[in-house]
Amino acid sequence: MKRIAVITSGGDAPGMNACIRAIVLTASQHDIEVIGFRHGFRGIVEDLNQPLHPNDMRLVSQRGGTILLSSRYPQFKEVDAARQAAAVLDQHDISALVVIGGDGSFRGAHHLDQYWDGQVLGLPGTIDNDLAGTDTTIGFTTAVDTAMEAIDRIRETAEAMARVFLIEVMGRHAGFIGLHAAIAGSAEAMLVPELEPQPKLADLADSIRRARQAFPDSSYLIVVSENLWPGGVEELARQLTQATGTTCHSAPLGHIQRGGRPNAADRILSMQLGQAAVHAVLDGISGHMIGVEQGHVVRVPLHLTFERDKQLDSRLVDLQLGLQQLNFASNVVKESA
Amino acid sequence: MKRIAVITSGGDAPGMNACIRAIVLTASQHDIEVIGFRHGFRGIVEDLNQPLHPNDMRLVSQRGGTILLSSRYPQFKEVDAARQAAAVLDQHDISALVVIGGDGSFRGAHHLDQYWDGQVLGLPGTIDNDLAGTDTTIGFTTAVDTAMEAIDRIRETAEAMARVFLIEVMGRHAGFIGLHAAIAGSAEAMLVPELEPQPKLADLADSIRRARQAFPDSSYLIVVSENLWPGGVEELARQLTQATGTTCHSAPLGHIQRGGRPNAADRILSMQLGQAAVHAVLDGISGHMIGVEQGHVVRVPLHLTFERDKQLDSRLVDLQLGLQQLNFASNVVKESA
Amino acid sequence: MKRIAVITSGGDAPGMNACIRAIVLTASQHDIEVIGFRHGFRGIVEDLNQPLHPNDMRLVSQRGGTILLSSRYPQFKEVDAARQAAAVLDQHDISALVVIGGDGSFRGAHHLDQYWDGQVLGLPGTIDNDLAGTDTTIGFTTAVDTAMEAIDRIRETAEAMARVFLIEVMGRHAGFIGLHAAIAGSAEAMLVPELEPQPKLADLADSIRRARQAFPDSSYLIVVSENLWPGGVEELARQLTQATGTTCHSAPLGHIQRGGRPNAADRILSMQLGQAAVHAVLDGISGHMIGVEQGHVVRVPLHLTFERDKQLDSRLVDLQLGLQQLNFASNVVKESA
Amino acid sequence: MKRIAVITSGGDAPGMNACIRAIVLTASQHDIEVIGFRHGFRGIVEDLNQPLHPNDMRLVSQRGGTILLSSRYPQFKEVDAARQAAAVLDQHDISALVVIGGDGSFRGAHHLDQYWDGQVLGLPGTIDNDLAGTDTTIGFTTAVDTAMEAIDRIRETAEAMARVFLIEVMGRHAGFIGLHAAIAGSAEAMLVPELEPQPKLADLADSIRRARQAFPDSSYLIVVSENLWPGGVEELARQLTQATGTTCHSAPLGHIQRGGRPNAADRILSMQLGQAAVHAVLDGISGHMIGVEQGHVVRVPLHLTFERDKQLDSRLVDLQLGLQQLNFASNVVKESA
Repeated sequence: MKRIAVITSGGDAPGMNACIRAIVLTASQHDIEVIGFRHGFRGIVEDLNQPLHPNDMRLVSQRGGTILLSSRYPQFKEVDAARQAAAVLDQHDISALVVIGGDGSFRGAHHLDQYWDGQVLGLPGTIDNDLAGTDTTIGFTTAVDTAMEAIDRIRETAEAMARVFLIEVMGRHAGFIGLHAAIAGSAEAMLVPELEPQPKLADLADSIRRARQAFPDSSYLIVVSENLWPGGVEELARQLTQATGTTCHSAPLGHIQRGGRPNAADRILSMQLGQAAVHAVLDGISGHMIGVEQGHVVRVPLHLTFERDKQLDSRLVDLQLGLQQLNFASNVVKESA
Repeated sequence: MKRIAVITSGGDAPGMNACIRAIVLTASQHDIEVIGFRHGFRGIVEDLNQPLHPNDMRLVSQRGGTILLSSRYPQFKEVDAARQAAAVLDQHDISALVVIGGDGSFRGAHHLDQYWDGQVLGLPGTIDNDLAGTDTTIGFTTAVDTAMEAIDRIRETAEAMARVFLIEVMGRHAGFIGLHAAIAGSAEAMLVPELEPQPKLADLADSIRRARQAFPDSSYLIVVSENLWPGGVEELARQLTQATGTTCHSAPLGHIQRGGRPNAADRILSMQLGQAAVHAVLDGISGHMIGVEQGHVVRVPLHLTFERDKQLDSRLVDLQLGLQQLNFASNVVKESA
Repeated sequence: MKRIAVITSGGDAPGMNACIRAIVLTASQHDIEVIGFRHGFRGIVEDLNQPLHPNDMRLVSQRGGTILLSSRYPQFKEVDAARQAAAVLDQHDISALVVIGGDGSFRGAHHLDQYWDGQVLGLPGTIDNDLAGTDTTIGFTTAVDTAMEAIDRIRETAEAMARVFLIEVMGRHAGFIGLHAAIAGSAEAMLVPELEPQPKLADLADSIRRARQAFPDSSYLIVVSENLWPGGVEELARQLTQATGTTCHSAPLGHIQRGGRPNAADRILSMQLGQAAVHAVLDGISGHMIGVEQGHVVRVPLHLTFERDKQLDSRLVDLQLGLQQLNFASNVVKESA
Repeated sequence: MKRIAVITSGGDAPGMNACIRAIVLTASQHDIEVIGFRHGFRGIVEDLNQPLHPNDMRLVSQRGGTILLSSRYPQFKEVDAARQAAAVLDQHDISALVVIGGDGSFRGAHHLDQYWDGQVLGLPGTIDNDLAGTDTTIGFTTAVDTAMEAIDRIRETAEAMARVFLIEVMGRHAGFIGLHAAIAGSAEAMLVPELEPQPKLADLADSIRRARQAFPDSSYLIVVSENLWPGGVEELARQLTQATGTTCHSAPLGHIQRGGRPNAADRILSMQLGQAAVHAVLDGISGHMIGVEQGHVVRVPLHLTFERDKQLDSRLVDLQLGLQQLNFASNVVKESA
C-alpha cells in the first residue's frame, strides 16, 4: 500500500483546501493514506508532518488560505535540501508527493524529482494563472472576482466624485488578473505587461484628457498590473496628474486578492484536479503537472510549465481593447456632435 | 446602414446587462445604431422600443436583472404575433434582431425567422444552462455561486445543530445548477434528473441513517433539483423524516438564484457573446445562436439548441458521486473501526 | 480559583463564536479557565465537555454557527435534568455558567439556577431579537443583512419580470427581522405580527391591484414574518393571486438567515457581551442576562427577559408605514395626473 | 407650498441614496417638491439642478455612491459663493436646503445660513463618523463592514504564510473606523490617533517579536488609521521590518472603503434621518444637524458638530486593548509553560 504526501507551496490561493479534501477523500477510497507537511517544502525538510483524515475534510472546502500553511523556501534549490526532503519522505514511507503551487514550487518539485525515487506531481495553485500547460489555475477566478468586486466599489465612489483611478492588481509578471478584471470591471483602460507596444504616458494622459472633456461628470478607471510601471501606480498617478492637470488617484488592491472563500469554479476545479492527482499516482505518473485544457484534464511534464511563457487569450485582449476603443470612439462622436 | 434590435426574453439572468453593453458598444464602433424593445417579444409586438446609446451603458454591467426588462410570452407561438413583430421591426428599419434568452425564447426566435426577412440571432441567456450547442450560458455560473453561498450558510447552521437539510436548487428540468452546486457545496448527496437510476427513497434514508450513526454530530446536506421529487423538497423532507426517524429540514432556495451581480466569468462571457453577435450580424448570419465551446465562439443553428438535450459533464458527475461514495466509505471504515 | 463553563443553546446565531472568544480571552486575563459543553444543556447533562484555550480562539470570530454546537433540549424542563447538570458542573469545579441563547435557553438557565449553587448568566444570542431587556441580540443584525441581501436579489429579478413577491423572513413570533428587512429592502408592504389591526387580504389585494395599475412595469415586494399567515407565504400567494388576477410569487428565505459570517456590529456586540459576562462573574452576579441598552451594558434578571414581550421600535414602524403610504400616495397622484 | 433642495457634499458615503429616497418620499407625502443639485455646493452655485420624483426613487437605496454626485468645493468659503448660492436657491423658490455630508460640508451649510433666508439642515453623511452630536453617521457601519471583510481576507493569506500585516484604514483624523475594524477583525494591535500615549515603534516591534516567538506559525495583524504614521503604513512596515527582522507587509485598504451597497443599518439610519429632515423643515428648524443619539433623533446646532471633537467610545477602546493584552498575556503564559 502506498502513502501520499501533500504540500501547499508558494503564495496561497483560494481553493487549495478543496483540493486537499479531494486528494484525501479519493485516496481514502483506494485505501491510501495521506499525510501533509506544513509550510511547503520547508515542512518536508524539517519534517513538520500532519496526518490528514477524511473526517477532517468536512468543512475545509469553504475556506480560503491553506490548512497546510505555505511558505516560499528558496533554499530548496540546493541539492542538500532535496536530498534531505527525499530522506524524510522515505522515512514516512511516502511513495508519491503532490505539490500544490505555482512556478517556483514546480521548479522545486522538478528539482526534488531528480533526487528522490518517489512520484512527484504538481497541481497548479496560484492566483496569477501564469503556468503554461493549463488553461486556469486554482485561485485565479476567485482572485478575479475579488478584484472585480473591489473595482465595483471604487467605481461607485469614483462615479460619485467624477474621479480618475489607477487600480493596481496582482499577477506577478503576467496580465491574467489584469485582463480579466479590466473586462469584468468595464475599465476604461488597461495596462498589462503583454501589450505591445506598451501605451506611453502621453497616450494615457491624452486619453484621460479627452474623456474628461467629453464626460466631465464621469469616472475613469485604469486597471494596471503590478510590477509594470516603475514606482507602481502611486508613481503613475503622480505622473498622470501632472500631465493631465486632473488628480489621478491610485488604488493598489494588494493582498485582499489572495484571500476569501473560493468561488464555485475554483472549488470544482480544485476537486477535479485533486481527484485526478490520485488517479495519476495510481497510474504511476511522475514529474508531471495535472492541469485542465478546454475542459479536459491533462498531464504536462513539469518543466514545460515554467520554461514556456503562457499567453493571454488574444480574443479577450481584443475584446477589452475593442470595448476601450469604443468608449473612446463614442467620446469622439459626442465631442463632434 | 443597419440598425440592430435587442431583446431579453424569458427568465432574466445575471450578465444580460453586460451583454447588452457589449452589443451597443461594438455596434457603435461600426456606426450601427441599436434599439431595445422592453419585455421581450411582447415588447416588439407592442412596439415598446427604447433607444440604447453607448453612454447609457457605462454602469449597467455590474447590475443583475435586465435593463430591457423581460417576460414570458407564450402567445408568440402564433403566426399573427410573428407577423406583427416583423412589421414593427421593419417599421423601425431593423435589419437584425438579437434575442438574449433560453430555450423558449429561441423557439420564438426560430418562429420569427420564418416570417421576417431580417437576421435573427440568439445569445444563450439562462441560469439553467440547458441549451445544447454551448458549454455555458449567461447567468449560469453566477447562479451556481449564489446557490453555493446559500449552501455555505445552511452548512453553518446545519453543522451547529447537527441537522439534515434538503436544499432545492433551480434548473427547470436539468441538473446543471444541482451538479455544480453539490460539488461546490461539498454536499453529502445529490438528486438531479439525469441520474440513472434515480436514487430511491429507501436508499436515501439508508444513507442518512448510516451517516447519522457514524457522525451523530455532523450535518448532512442533500442538493435536490427542482421539479424532480413530486411535492418538492418539502414532501421529500416529510418522507425522509418518517423513514429515518431524524428530522429532515427543507430549504428551497428559490428566486434568490436569479438575482445578484454577475460574477466575473459571466460578465466576460456576456461581453464576448455580445461582441460576437455584432460580428455575426456583419457576417450576414441568421437563424443561429452564438455560443461558446471549449473557449471558442461558435455559431449553432437555433433549432439544434432546443431540439437536442444537453448532457451533464460526466466527469463532474463522476467527481461528485466519487466524493459522495468516499464520504460513505469513510463512514463504513469508521463504523467498523 | 474559579472555572467558567460556557454553552450555546437553542438556534445558533452569527456572533456566538466571537462571544466565546471574548469570554475565553477575558477569563484568561484573570487567570480563570474556561471549558465548554457541546450541544447546549444536553451537553452538560451528558458531560460533553471541551476545554477552551485562548490559542484556539484565534480564528473563530469570523465564522458563523457555533464551535460549541447547539441544540434544543426540551427535556431540560425536568428537575432531574437540572440536578444532573448541577452535579456535572460541580464535578468539574465550575463556579459560573454562561448560557448564550434565546428565550427557551434563558428559561433553562433560570430553571438550573434553582438547583445549582453556582452563578448562572445569560447572554442574548438569537437572530430573532425577541428578548426583553436588551436592545439587540447576537446575530440579529447579521440576519437582517442576510435577509436584505436576499431581498435585493429578488428585487432584481422581480423588477426584470415586473413581478409581485411575498418574501417570508424569520422571527419566530416577533417582527424584528421583518420590520428591519422591510425598511432596508424598500419593501412596498410589510406583514409583521405586531401590526394592529393586521392588514386584511382584501386590503393587500387592493394595494397590489392599484400598484399594478399605476406601475405595470414595476416589482412589488411584501415582507412577511413567518408563523403569521396560516399556510405561510405559499398560501398567502395563492390567495392573493386569486384575489388580484396577478401571479404572486412566494419566496420563503428559510435557514440561510441563520448562517453566514457575522457582520461587524454583531462581532463587536458579541465581544462586548462576552467581556461583560466575565466581569459579572467576578462581581458575583447570578440569575441575570447581560444585555445592551442605548449603548450601555445592562444586567437584567433572567425571568424579566422572557416574561415580558419586547416591543418593536414604534419610530421604525412609523418609518416603514410612512414610506409605504408614500409609495401608495404617489401612485394615487400619478393615477390622477 | 414649499420646495426642498438636497445636495450630497464632500466624500460620498453608502446610504446617501437611501437618504435622498426618504426625503423625496416623505416630502411628497406632504405635497412638497424636492429638487437636487448635482456635485454638492458647486452644483448650487452653477445651478446644476435635477428634479427628484418619487418614482425615480424605487431602486436607489441599494446602491452605493450618490445619484446626486458630490464634490469637495473649498471655494464655498467665500462670501460671494454663498450669496450666489442663495440667489440660485431663491430663483428656484427653495425654502429649505438639506445638506448630506460631513464636517466640511456642515461648515459650508453654516456659512450659507448666514447669507440666505431659507432653512438650512445638515444630515451626517461620512464614513469617518467624526461629527459630534450624533452617535453614528451615514456610511460609517458599512465602511467598517467593508474594512472587516478586507481584514478577513488578509487574515486568511496572512495565516497561511504566517505573516505580519499593517492594514491602513480610513478615518481622516479620527479612529472610529480603525477601532471598530480592529475589534471586528480580531486585530492583534491597533494604532488610532486617539490613543494616549501613542505606542512607540519600539513597543510595536517588541510586541511583534514576542508574538513571533510564541506563535511562529501565526498571523499578526495591526490596524492603523490613515494620516497617523509619517509616511503611512508603507513606511511603518519598513521601520518595523528593520526593527524586528521579520518582514512586515503593508496593506492600505484605500477607496474600496467608500463604495459598496449600504448595509441594513446604514439604510435604516439614512431613511430615518431623511424622514426626520423633512419633519424638521415642517417644524421651521434651521441651522441644525439631524442626528441620532442612543436611538433617538436629535437636532444639534450645526456649529456644535464641527467645533467639538467627537470622542471614541471608551468602553470599546477598553474592549480592544483588553483583548490585545489578553493575546499578549496568553503568549507569555505559553512562553513560560
